[in-house]
Amino acid sequence: MTAHEAPAYRAAGVDLDSADEVVRRLKPLAASTRVPGVESDLGSFGGFFAFPEPGGERLLIASIDGVGTKMKVARLTGRWRDAGYDIVAHCVDDILVHGARPLFFLDYIGAGKLDVEAIAALGEGMAEACREAGCALLGGETAEMPGTYVEGEIDLVGCIVGEVRRGRLLPGDRVAPGDALIGLASWGLHTNGYSLARRVLIDEGPGIDARLEDGRTIGEALSARHRMYLPAVAPWLDRPELHGLAHITGGGIPGNLVRVLPGNCLARIDTGAWRVPPIFAEIARRGAVSAAEMHRVFNMGIGLILIADPAAADAMIGELEAGGWGPVRLGALAEGSRGVLLEGQGQGPGLGE
Amino acid sequence: MTAHEAPAYRAAGVDLDSADEVVRRLKPLAASTRVPGVESDLGSFGGFFAFPEPGGERLLIASIDGVGTKMKVARLTGRWRDAGYDIVAHCVDDILVHGARPLFFLDYIGAGKLDVEAIAALGEGMAEACREAGCALLGGETAEMPGTYVEGEIDLVGCIVGEVRRGRLLPGDRVAPGDALIGLASWGLHTNGYSLARRVLIDEGPGIDARLEDGRTIGEALSARHRMYLPAVAPWLDRPELHGLAHITGGGIPGNLVRVLPGNCLARIDTGAWRVPPIFAEIARRGAVSAAEMHRVFNMGIGLILIADPAAADAMIGELEAGGWGPVRLGALAEGSRGVLLEGQGQGPGLGE
Repeated sequence: MTAHEAPAYRAAGVDLDSADEVVRRLKPLAASTRVPGVESDLGSFGGFFAFPEPGGERLLIASIDGVGTKMKVARLTGRWRDAGYDIVAHCVDDILVHGARPLFFLDYIGAGKLDVEAIAALGEGMAEACREAGCALLGGETAEMPGTYVEGEIDLVGCIVGEVRRGRLLPGDRVAPGDALIGLASWGLHTNGYSLARRVLIDEGPGIDARLEDGRTIGEALSARHRMYLPAVAPWLDRPELHGLAHITGGGIPGNLVRVLPGNCLARIDTGAWRVPPIFAEIARRGAVSAAEMHRVFNMGIGLILIADPAAADAMIGELEAGGWGPVRLGALAEGSRGVLLEGQGQGPGLGE
Repeated sequence: MTAHEAPAYRAAGVDLDSADEVVRRLKPLAASTRVPGVESDLGSFGGFFAFPEPGGERLLIASIDGVGTKMKVARLTGRWRDAGYDIVAHCVDDILVHGARPLFFLDYIGAGKLDVEAIAALGEGMAEACREAGCALLGGETAEMPGTYVEGEIDLVGCIVGEVRRGRLLPGDRVAPGDALIGLASWGLHTNGYSLARRVLIDEGPGIDARLEDGRTIGEALSARHRMYLPAVAPWLDRPELHGLAHITGGGIPGNLVRVLPGNCLARIDTGAWRVPPIFAEIARRGAVSAAEMHRVFNMGIGLILIADPAAADAMIGELEAGGWGPVRLGALAEGSRGVLLEGQGQGPGLGE
């Protein structure tokens, strides 16, 4: 996403030009440290490292990320445990898109002052999510830095390491025109777009206690957990019918799906195929945010996209439906130049509602 | 270190009671996530994970940490590149004490506003240190979080993963009474004690441009890099004469050396054996900090301690001397109950000067 496409996001204080420039500057520096074993460039969801062993069949995949300013919502609502769950689920999903199962996770909690109860609740949420993922909470650090953090604020960072067999790395080389696109429902904003959402709904809006049309409060909707898709996808990780996965984080469906497409694939998404949850419509309405920008900042109700063999799509949807994952047939890959086309009613101001 | 022993540190805004309580609360949560492969408890310098392979001979060791409020010194001096070097060197040294060589490193940079030049300089320092360690800078995340970070402040977090063969894990079972203790010179405070040092020397002191007796400015002394001891120790990692290592971080020599001692070993350290660098004496003098507290907060000029076979100590010191590592024979392990005894002139107000 380039900054001129994101006026509302910029107004919320996030400078995407700078973020792009940072990546441009850091990429060659990271490349200068390449050692035997490295099999990725900076910029993928996870870094790949071939564990030095006979055969070299196994790759470690590592990723680091934060919860972002969703932490400010946790402070307002007191739902720290959910934020702890969020960071693990986010990291698990980031390496899942490469086909990886998590091995272990480490956390960093930075704050101006250690709030023992808040940190313990973060720990409970992280441990819950780690147990769910079958992943060890292997270590962590808690830093008290008066003067660095704004009073009362906490930053939460997670680093995850997982593994995948080389032959099962996703996206494989099987992503091709004709493939089905299956979306899995998100539980809310997950961990993206909070600077904009907070400005529109809290700072300049009705606040966390106001109710949405579905009866939930804004605080509840904004605190909803980042969904962990590992249990949904795990049965398919070793099966050839699954060709690729896209984790819908910052950049939305277009920004993330395009990252796993080969040069000859245009993803055609019917934005009328699913019901966009009320929280997103509320943000769009109150912030007068265009549908195009909404789709580039938020997941809009779809947290993961599976790219699948079209012959297997019905069976896959059936299994995912039975598991309560809310699968939606979003569209398909067409022959065309690499890109994502959002079609249908969802492009209008109503956002598919 | 318990809080009542650290009045100056507490006055600088760091609450050690809370930090202890946080660890007490998080430890059982981490234990609840134990999966096959985990071979450590929360609280060691690095978490151990047995890579699932035939034989199980190889362990991954992971650690996460921050630079702490040394970042505030970097902001005052503009020496961001050094801070980038610091985080990698600190992480490398943390897993080195387990005998591990680093494989890869990931960074997280959090700030209220992305300062592209500062972040690029951090990246240069991290890449330089990674190249020196033979470690890949595998990934990272840069987060812009207005309202979470105080304006102009940056937090820098690193996560490192290394490996060690099970039989070469340090400390091994060979640490025993009679072993020699060899200290390697630090380059300054490394990454610990900055809340206290900043208060005493900057906020309530002469500021970064004042000169120390060695001619360096306070800003230069406080920005001095965290020394990376991997090249010094690497030749000994596969040799039985090296019995253990202690990385002197928060807690100083007593707090860190004790962690690698068996129950029957009392470390006797002659604090007159080395010259404490002027920066520490300046902090003690201006802050009226007792020698005992100084030794529990700062490394006092010794960044790493090698525990070695006494018969090999002379040869080891000779090699380290030739390499420019500034080795000092600090003392030896005596038969006694587990602990560290600081003896000699260095206990007085002059701090061994």
